[in-house]
Amino acid sequence: MADQINGKKVASVVLDACRAEVAELMAEGRRPGLAVVLVGSDPASEVYVASKERTCLDLGMHSRKLELPASTSQEKLLEVVADLNADEDIDGILVQSPLPPHMDEGEVVRAINPAKDVDGFHPENVAKLALEDPSGFVPCTPLGCQRLLEAYAIDPAGKHVVIVGRSLIVGKSLALLLMAKGPWANATVTVAHSRTQDLVAVTRQADILVAAVGVPEMLGAEHVREGAVVLDVGVNRVDDPEKKRGYRLCGDVDFSAVEPLASAITPVPGGVGPMTIAMLMSNTVKACRARRGQQEER
Amino acid sequence: MADQINGKKVASVVLDACRAEVAELMAEGRRPGLAVVLVGSDPASEVYVASKERTCLDLGMHSRKLELPASTSQEKLLEVVADLNADEDIDGILVQSPLPPHMDEGEVVRAINPAKDVDGFHPENVAKLALEDPSGFVPCTPLGCQRLLEAYAIDPAGKHVVIVGRSLIVGKSLALLLMAKGPWANATVTVAHSRTQDLVAVTRQADILVAAVGVPEMLGAEHVREGAVVLDVGVNRVDDPEKKRGYRLCGDVDFSAVEPLASAITPVPGGVGPMTIAMLMSNTVKACRARRGQQEER
Repeated sequence: MADQINGKKVASVVLDACRAEVAELMAEGRRPGLAVVLVGSDPASEVYVASKERTCLDLGMHSRKLELPASTSQEKLLEVVADLNADEDIDGILVQSPLPPHMDEGEVVRAINPAKDVDGFHPENVAKLALEDPSGFVPCTPLGCQRLLEAYAIDPAGKHVVIVGRSLIVGKSLALLLMAKGPWANATVTVAHSRTQDLVAVTRQADILVAAVGVPEMLGAEHVREGAVVLDVGVNRVDDPEKKRGYRLCGDVDFSAVEPLASAITPVPGGVGPMTIAMLMSNTVKACRARRGQQEER
Repeated sequence: MADQINGKKVASVVLDACRAEVAELMAEGRRPGLAVVLVGSDPASEVYVASKERTCLDLGMHSRKLELPASTSQEKLLEVVADLNADEDIDGILVQSPLPPHMDEGEVVRAINPAKDVDGFHPENVAKLALEDPSGFVPCTPLGCQRLLEAYAIDPAGKHVVIVGRSLIVGKSLALLLMAKGPWANATVTVAHSRTQDLVAVTRQADILVAAVGVPEMLGAEHVREGAVVLDVGVNRVDDPEKKRGYRLCGDVDFSAVEPLASAITPVPGGVGPMTIAMLMSNTVKACRARRGQQEER
């Protein structure tokens, strides 16, 4: 039976540290501020955005929510981003994904001031991650995975981490993060994906297996070596007529099949998910400190 | 017995294509130009730089070699880079590594106009590689490895590529290149390194094994599964009193031990090495074309 990795609990520790930092910064006359831009009305996005706003307020941070209609032009969104770049009260800017199909998401990300890019998707921050420059922002979900390992004293150094999924948001960034030199890194990292031949043979090599594919319960018992640590990044909605809302949430891992094999595993929900939002807050506090430091240097 | 992968031959095919492109560009009134900056007098660097210059001239390209004393100040080097950035006749700028210890190599790389960064080390190009944006420049050695696979019709798609070494110049960049979506990519990629536990077990997983550690003949027969393809990026000087010059060149792979096992293998010298310089020329021609295109758009 695996230890359940309690992401809610670790997230609350991270958030407590953020709360203390916010109080410190406010004593210095500076309240960290996060702006979240939502274009259109994707129901899942609305849930995420509301949760981010609630967490900000709970920590004593300044929160700004900008809701734009789905018909918003690219130009208009770029103007909104430019205003937020210039706004002294805003330390972090997050444009909620996905954007409506007529928009160029890459251009929007590149328009965000890298010093306020708390999502870590701006090319300047992507490069800093690859270059192991700690002044950058690391995407929140990979950072949350690393923090979970740290909280459970699972040191990836020298271990074989197999990541299934090669998105920039999770797989590729986590690979760069965990193969870097430094604490809670130095791992041997494999990135597998939809094109991988004999996925089972690859994932069974893992000391630490990370699922980030977005396919409900794709990884089963056959994919996991006994004693492996399993981090499940997937959050999938699966129809379930027995549930009042008509669906249930599940991960990319078949939890009930894998849990007896693993030495530790994250549940869905309550595993990696809460960490993502906690690291967003942590990045925003970091942005506030860095910007404040720069202002004092002037 | 393995096929020997003949890097010299493939490089000459790449260079022939460059030569044809140079002729085309010159017919349009534009000669591609590469500037190489050498600070101090490292003997190996001098050999590399001379070879780059010779290849440029052989292709009909414009070549500029700037030799600065080891005592050059950081400021002075940045001025030289700024002049080359502004020089219309120069499409590619390469500052030969290593720089003297008093210099900040990162700052110098960041000072190069990314559109002329034919080495692919500028953060903007690093990010483009991670973001799979083909407008960037990929570092020459990883690009050369990919081209060798292509030349020998060894498609890495779905295959397990194990790279030993996590430098930005080779290991990490090659990992990003081969895990990307696209032709001659889509590989399952593992990055191993000095901290990897049980390296033998990891490297024996490889369908394609890449050695990029800089340790003479570190990988032996025990590291290689029968039938694997082996690319040896290492170029090491080892004392050899039987040689007139007092040393011999060898790779990171024990060639005589591995060659009987591998299905294909690069020798050292004559494997990956010639590809690096060929891809530098190819990147310079690409830079010239891109800059020319932009000028016409104005």
